[in-house]
Amino acid sequence: MRSQPIPAPAVRRLSLYLRQLEQLRHGGRTTVSSRALAEALHLTAAQVRKDLAWFGQFGQPGKGYDVEALAARLRRILGTDRTVNVVVVGAGNLGRALLQHKGFLRKGFRIVAAFDTDGRTVGQAFGGIIVQPLSHLESTLAAQDVRLAILTTPAEAAQSTCQRLAEAGVRGVLNFAPVALAAPAPLAVVSVDLTVQLEQLSFLVHSQTDGPADDLDAENPSRSARV
Amino acid sequence: MRSQPIPAPAVRRLSLYLRQLEQLRHGGRTTVSSRALAEALHLTAAQVRKDLAWFGQFGQPGKGYDVEALAARLRRILGTDRTVNVVVVGAGNLGRALLQHKGFLRKGFRIVAAFDTDGRTVGQAFGGIIVQPLSHLESTLAAQDVRLAILTTPAEAAQSTCQRLAEAGVRGVLNFAPVALAAPAPLAVVSVDLTVQLEQLSFLVHSQTDGPADDLDAENPSRSARV
Repeated sequence: MRSQPIPAPAVRRLSLYLRQLEQLRHGGRTTVSSRALAEALHLTAAQVRKDLAWFGQFGQPGKGYDVEALAARLRRILGTDRTVNVVVVGAGNLGRALLQHKGFLRKGFRIVAAFDTDGRTVGQAFGGIIVQPLSHLESTLAAQDVRLAILTTPAEAAQSTCQRLAEAGVRGVLNFAPVALAAPAPLAVVSVDLTVQLEQLSFLVHSQTDGPADDLDAENPSRSARV
Repeated sequence: MRSQPIPAPAVRRLSLYLRQLEQLRHGGRTTVSSRALAEALHLTAAQVRKDLAWFGQFGQPGKGYDVEALAARLRRILGTDRTVNVVVVGAGNLGRALLQHKGFLRKGFRIVAAFDTDGRTVGQAFGGIIVQPLSHLESTLAAQDVRLAILTTPAEAAQSTCQRLAEAGVRGVLNFAPVALAAPAPLAVVSVDLTVQLEQLSFLVHSQTDGPADDLDAENPSRSARV
C-alpha cells in the first residue's frame, strides 16, 4: 500500500472548515451542506467534498454534514480534541501579544508557561502567565506535559532554543523568528514570518498593478499568483 | 500566449531567498552558489535554480549569484525596492505588537498610521505611532500614499473594515482576523490566522505520533503532511 501524503493546502483548509463549523454551531445550526460551507469560505463545494474525503466521507446525501459531528471529527484529526499545552519562548512585543491572545484557549491551546532571557521581562505577567528565566525551561517542561512551543526569540537565538525544546520533549514549534530552522527529528516546525507575509502581499499587489520596468513580464506574463 | 501563474510556494520562497541574501551581504559575502543558498534554507539547489528561473536567469555558471544584484532584483519583484506605506487597523494586543515590530521597516514597510474604535486606545502611542479613531481612516488615507493595510480587528469588524480600506484605495490587506474575507476586486488579501497555524502544527505532531483511535489511518496511512 502506497503512502499518499495529504496535500498541505487540504490540511490548512481543515482548520478553516472547523472555524466555520464552530461559528455555525454558535449560531444554532445543526447541519450544513458542502455548498454553504464552500460559500462561506469562498471555495467550491467540490473542493470541500474532496478535502473532507481525504479523511473519509462525513456527509449524507441530501442532508449535508452534521455540524457537531464534523467539528468533533476535525478536532480529532487536528489533535485539538483535548487541550494542548503550549509554552512561549521569547516575551518581546509579539510574545506578549500571544500570551494575551484569547483565541488560543478557545481552540484548545493552553499557554502554560513563558520564558525570556531579559531580566527586565522575567517576573512580569502577561495574560496571567509570569515570565520565567530561560534557564528554567528544562525543569518546567519536565514537570508538565507540553507538546508545542511558540518561538518568538530574536533570529540569533532561535536555532539553539529550538534544539533545547526538542531535547526537552517538545514535538512541534510555531516559529516566528525570521530564520529557517533546522528541525531535529522528530520535531515539526511551522514558520510564520510576518515580514514574509507582508512581502507576499506586496508581490500580489505589485504584480497586479505595476507596469514592469524590467523583463519580468516578457518571461512570465501572469499576475495571478495567490499565496 | 498562455498565462502561466507563478506557483505560490515559489513566490513564498523568494522572500526566504531575499532574507538569506541580506544575511549574506551583512556578513560581507558578494557571491553565493545555488547550493549554498539551498543548504541555508534546507532546500535543494535544483529547487533554488528552478524558482529563480521563473523570473529569468540570475546566476552565472561557476560563479553563482551576485548577492547584491539578486537581492535588488528580488526586491523589485516583490515590490519592496521602494518603501511601502502601511496602516494598522485594530490596536489590540497584536496590533500594538506589530506597531512596535522593528523588522518591517528594515524590509521596506513603513507603518504610517494606526486606527482603533476603542476610546481608551485612541490617542495612545505604540512604536511612535499615535492611534487614531477609525473615523479618521478615509481622511488619513486620502492624505497619504498607502498601499497596504494590516487588519487586526475582531472578526466581526473585519469585513466592513476591509471594504472601507478597499474604497479608500488600499490595494492589499494582511488579515489577522479569524474570518474568511470576501475581498472586493482588485484588493488582494493574505490571511494569517495564528490559531490556524497552531492547529496545523498540532496536526503535524498528532499525525506523526499518535496511534489512531479512529479510522483515519485506514483511509490514509500517510503522516507526512507539511504545511
